[in-house]
This record gives sequence, C-alpha cells and structure tokens, in this order.
Amino acid sequence: MTQASVCTIGDEILIGQIVDTNSSRISQALNIAGIRVKRMLSIGDERKEIIDSLREELEINDIVISTGGLGPTKDDITKSALATLSGSRKYVENETQLAIIHRILSSRGLDVLDINRAQAMVPDTCEVIPNNLGTAPIMVFRFEEKVFGHPATLYALPGVPFEALGAVPAVIDDIKAHYPVEDIYHKSVMTYGMAESALSKLIEPWETALPADMHLAYLPNQLTGVRLRLSIYGGEKEKEETRIEAELKKLEAILGDKIYSDSDDNLQNTIGRLLKGTGKTLSAAESCTGGEIASLITSIPGASEYFLGSVTSYAISVKESVLGVNPATIEKCGVVSREVAAEMAEGVRNLTGSTYSVATTGLAGPLGDGVNRVGTVWIGVSGPSGTKTLTKNYQNDRMRNIERFSATALDFLRQYILNDSSS
Amino acid sequence: MTQASVCTIGDEILIGQIVDTNSSRISQALNIAGIRVKRMLSIGDERKEIIDSLREELEINDIVISTGGLGPTKDDITKSALATLSGSRKYVENETQLAIIHRILSSRGLDVLDINRAQAMVPDTCEVIPNNLGTAPIMVFRFEEKVFGHPATLYALPGVPFEALGAVPAVIDDIKAHYPVEDIYHKSVMTYGMAESALSKLIEPWETALPADMHLAYLPNQLTGVRLRLSIYGGEKEKEETRIEAELKKLEAILGDKIYSDSDDNLQNTIGRLLKGTGKTLSAAESCTGGEIASLITSIPGASEYFLGSVTSYAISVKESVLGVNPATIEKCGVVSREVAAEMAEGVRNLTGSTYSVATTGLAGPLGDGVNRVGTVWIGVSGPSGTKTLTKNYQNDRMRNIERFSATALDFLRQYILNDSSS
Repeated sequence: MTQASVCTIGDEILIGQIVDTNSSRISQALNIAGIRVKRMLSIGDERKEIIDSLREELEINDIVISTGGLGPTKDDITKSALATLSGSRKYVENETQLAIIHRILSSRGLDVLDINRAQAMVPDTCEVIPNNLGTAPIMVFRFEEKVFGHPATLYALPGVPFEALGAVPAVIDDIKAHYPVEDIYHKSVMTYGMAESALSKLIEPWETALPADMHLAYLPNQLTGVRLRLSIYGGEKEKEETRIEAELKKLEAILGDKIYSDSDDNLQNTIGRLLKGTGKTLSAAESCTGGEIASLITSIPGASEYFLGSVTSYAISVKESVLGVNPATIEKCGVVSREVAAEMAEGVRNLTGSTYSVATTGLAGPLGDGVNRVGTVWIGVSGPSGTKTLTKNYQNDRMRNIERFSATALDFLRQYILNDSSS
Repeated sequence: MTQASVCTIGDEILIGQIVDTNSSRISQALNIAGIRVKRMLSIGDERKEIIDSLREELEINDIVISTGGLGPTKDDITKSALATLSGSRKYVENETQLAIIHRILSSRGLDVLDINRAQAMVPDTCEVIPNNLGTAPIMVFRFEEKVFGHPATLYALPGVPFEALGAVPAVIDDIKAHYPVEDIYHKSVMTYGMAESALSKLIEPWETALPADMHLAYLPNQLTGVRLRLSIYGGEKEKEETRIEAELKKLEAILGDKIYSDSDDNLQNTIGRLLKGTGKTLSAAESCTGGEIASLITSIPGASEYFLGSVTSYAISVKESVLGVNPATIEKCGVVSREVAAEMAEGVRNLTGSTYSVATTGLAGPLGDGVNRVGTVWIGVSGPSGTKTLTKNYQNDRMRNIERFSATALDFLRQYILNDSSS
C-alpha cells in the first residue's frame, strides 16, 4: 500500500502557538483516497532540521507532503532547504504562478513587490502545480529509486490552511498517476443526538454482523454529530457500493430520524435542502448562541432563498423591545426559561413573517446567573404546528457550549420541519 | 539547550479522525518553561513503529514525551512497546496508582475489573508519576548516556487531553531537576489591516537592525491579522524583557494604530477592553456576514456588559421593516452600497439605543448580484461622531470572505471608537 508522511514546517506549531489542523485534514483526504498516512511530523523553520527530517521521511515513505514555510518573508526558508535537498543549483521563474500572483495582488489593489515576485521562483529540480488560491506555488520533487532506495515524491504545499487543503485534490491525482493506489469505497450517514458510546451500544448487533471486509468508523464532531462511515478496500466498484448500501439500509431501520443525511453533510445544509424550493422561510432569535446559528445557516450558499434574518437579543431590552418578549414572563420565569425561549421564537417569527423560527436562551459560561447551571440552554421552535421547546445541559467551555447549543437547536428545528411537512 | 520531542500515538490521529491538540498544548507549556520542542511526531498503534520511532526520537533529543496508547483496551499497546524498548523483563504493580484506580472507579459506581487492575502494572524499568485524573499511570524511563550517546528520558502520558495536560507540570518539574533549562522570553504585538508582505517591507529597516539574538516571527491569521513576535533564548529575565520592550517601542512608532494590542489578542477582545467600564454600548446589523460579527463579539466572556444585540437582515424586507432602511435608498443605490451600510448602522443604533454600531452589506459569494463584484463589502459604523463607511474587496471563497469582512468591520469599529474616545 502506498505510504505517506505529512510534515508541517513552522516554529509557530512547535511553540504551541497554533494547533496544526492541516495534518489532520490532509490525512483524512489521503485516507479516503486509499493512501495510508504512516507518520505526521512537525518541525521548525530551521534549514538543517528541514533538510535532515524530510530526507529521513523520504527514506521510509513513498510520499512526503510538507506544508508551510513558503511565505514571502525571511523566516520562511523551506524553499531554499528543498533546493539543497533536491540538488538544485538554480531557480527558475514559473510564469503561471507569477500571473496568479499578479491577479491576486491586483484584485486587492496591491502592487507586486520584489518579495512577491520571488515567490514565483522555484528550484529547477521541481515541477509546479499552480496554486490559484495564494501566491506560493505547489512544488513537486520526484526522486528516482537510486536516491532513497525506492521512488519517492515530495509535495511542498503552503501552510495557510485553505491553500494547503485546496491543493490536496491535485496532489492526490498526481499520486494516483504515479503510485499503485487501491480503490477504497465508502459511504457515510450523519447522525445527531446520540453520544458515540450510546450509539455504539444501540447498533452493536448490526456492527457485529458486518462482513469481515467492511470497516465501520465513528467520526464524532461537535457541530455535525457522529458520522458513521462504512468502507471496503479493493474490489469492484459497483458490487462493493451495492453491498455497502445494503448494510446502511439496515442501519437506517435501526436509527430512524437520528440519521439526518446519507452523505457527508451538516445540519444547516440539511435544513436548506428541506426548505429550498418550498417557498417556506426561516428566522432565528439568539441569546446565548450570540449569532452562531445565523452564522451557520448563512454559511450555505443560496441561504438567502429561505433565511430572512435573525435577532441576537443579548440585552433584555432587545428581547422586549425588538422581539416583543413580555417583561412579565422574564420577571416570573427568568431569562433562561422555557417560556422566554418560546416567546423569542414566536417574536422573531412575527417580526420577520417567516414560516419557521428557532430561538435560544441559556448560559454558555463561564459566568453564571446564580440560578441556572452553566451549560444550560432552552431552545424554542415555532411554526405552523405551534411552538415547541427543549432543554439541554452541556458541561463544556464557553465556545464548545455555544457550538453544542447551536447544533442542538438546528437539529430540533430540523425535526420540527420534518414532522411539519409530513403532517 | 534542552531539547524535546512530543509524540502522539494512535491511529485515530493518522486517519484524520481527530485533531491532535495535546502536542500543541504540551509544547506551549514546555516552551514557556524554556524547554525547546524540536519535533512533534504522530504515529499509529503499531508495536514496531512505536519502538522504532521512539528510539529514533530518543537518539536525537534529550526528552521524549509520548501521549496515548495507554488505555485498557486491546488496541492500546504502547506500554508493552515501552517495556521492550527499555529492556524490561517483568511488570510490577504500582500501589499508588492502584489506589487511584479503585478511588476513580468506585466514585463512578463501577467495579474494578482485571483490565482496570492491569493498568497499575508497569515495566520494572520505569519510575511512576501517579496520575490522579485517570487510571493509567505516567511512566518515566531514564536512559543512561551509553544507550543513546547522551542521557535521555522518556515520559509516557495518557492520551486523554485533560489527563495528559494535567501531567505536564510534574513532567516539567522532573525535567528541570535533571536537565539544564534555559529561559526564553517573547512578546507579541497584534496588527491589522496590512498584508504580511506589505508589513514586512514597511518594517524592513527595523527588522534588519534587530540584535542578532532576537528572532522575529510573522504569524498571519484571517480573523486577527498579523501577529509579530520577538523572542530571545537565554539571558537574564529583566534585562532581556527590557531589550524586547525597547525594540517593540520602535516598532510601535513605525506602525501606529495598525497595532491594536501588545499581547496575544484579537479584535473582539480589544473592542471589549475599549468599552468595558465606560458604560458605552454596541450593536450590529449584518447582511453578508450573516451573524459572524455578533458571534465574534459574544465569544468574549462578559460581552453582555456592552453588547446589546444585533440584527441579521438577510432579506430586504428585514432591512426595511426592522432596521428602517429607506426603500428608496435600496431602489436608488442598491443593497450593496455605502448608503445602505450607513442606514443599517444608524438603524440598529436607533433600534437598540447603543452608543456605537457596526453594519455590513456585501457579496460573500459564490453567487453574485449582477452588479457588484463577488467579494465586495460595504461597512458602516455609527456613533456619537457620526456615521463612517468603508469598502473592501476580497477574492476568497464564501467562508473566508465572511471572515475577512467581519474582521475588517471589527477593525474599522475599533478605529472609530479609538478616535471617538480621544476627541
């Protein structure tokens, strides 16, 4: 099996200033494409360390993918280290990348400086995959068998995450063109509302009965729930896909509407699919989630077709004056309550005239209100079949609580819309 | 300088199922303590790979800290690999850890099973640092100089993040008791509004004149701008900190209000610092940013002291009916215009009664409106010194455009508040 090492280069990772997310996402993509990641390595912006470490990785892997150290400033020295490692004696200008640099900078109203232009200069020992998303080109160094005892390829990607990830499909295509890569077939279903352990217990009989060549993975995520992925390595495409489908059918019978999608998906997109083309609309009223729900909904291109808008009512005065929450309700039940969640949902629906609405009020922490436990949220959903409420408590830090509150609210809204449409 | 390698062990990291946050946090703690992290490595749950890789890391580092692979289940094989690596021939029971295991399980109402008891058994070649937060003990393997050519120590920590991080202070104390540890000093300033390359050109004379032992790093981030960090290894605390301060003073004279903070910070927190305790308040009206600005502002604990709320006016009807934008303005100037941004800012300020407000209208993409370029944003800020507007164009994907729009709006708001307070 073709084997890869993913290396991130940059002092900021070694001193713990930023968390390296590139390695994880690149590995996920390689894994899905059937390329096995054997090691991940992070090293600093130091010439000798870069050369020695990459050489070592090339000695024990077919593929090495590096990210980082390609910026225009002086502390980025990866390119010169790669020139040495590959025995390059001169740099050549890559015209395609230079044109991209001109386009990007001029679109930002910036002049092309010498240090920008220098980014289009690459060692003559590499091939270039143009980077349309940024100024640093993707460099491909191919080493013949005699160098490391096996044919080896080094792909140098920029460190900026969206540029690095943007380069991955082209890198995978290139790997597939040069190395034997076994096909891998997989399909996922997305679930929300059950923890990994409870889910695992519920589906245990099904999981135990899976054919030996079928592998199940649990992929939990704060915002999207637990993804269940079935995979098979090798075999005939059509046949294996049919076998996977058959197993997932059985799984759907067990999990019912805990499954919200049969592809890699998220809750906000699922809600968009439910609403698009129906003429039905949506609004939101947020207190403790502070705009996160609106932000998730509007992350979907074309959300303006069904999302009218939202009110973040952080102050009580805004809850009352803009959303029309009754001051007596707040007085009697408190701000974090079923009643206020319901009135917020109804209020924003009246205000915007939307078909559906979702509302949150709670305590994300770390500060409490002396009454409710930190991590408590009340969710209200309103629509043609009336107003429904739900409460949950999560024991996380502020940011994680906000994410869980938001995802739970979106899932509650999804279930409301589903049941509403079917009635 | 004492040099460390941080190694995480576990297939779930290599297939990209989870993002490794242990390495980053452990490295941060080591770095602050003056222990230099030279490499981070992630490897799978494979015996030979664990032995070979850890041996290699011990050959080139004084300290190796591993996390993971110490759980009670079958796929966790780190302990047996470490027994082999250290030449252990038998396991011994660690009584302190066994007592902790009993305490933890009984507090959860669980019986102590054989697989739990087995966690207190450790190779006779190691010392134990008790792990009060979980069942797996922290193992310390000390290798004499003759083994790897230098005295080397391997600390094996559990993989559960809060257990791993909980063990770090004891590990650092142990390192300091056995190795010479030099101090490290650094300080950052946060800048916004200039690209890395432009910044680098502007401060080049200053950068070139820096003392040889002072290292400058550029750390760009979509949401927080470019962080500039100066560091010195070794020396006397007070003296080196004064030297760094003096250089940063010179930098401040060059960059002026492009610098928004002299510590690790972000724009929303800076705005919070400007407003807290002043009695002044803030609101937001968002179109293309869809709730992201409110979300950023409310990510700061205690934001409720100054943030009243926001309206995400995605639909034109909400801009008109809730924010009071004049239909004639939209008709005449278009939704994405200086005039609408200004009326949105003024509208939300009227609606909430806040001292300041910030508004955005633009096109995050990928869909356009047939008039404006995708990536265009108009920002309005309103307050006691009137209403100001700004336009920018960014050529990114939808999510990145939303982030850039939001950060630029926050920076524009920050400058408005700064100038307003000083007048």
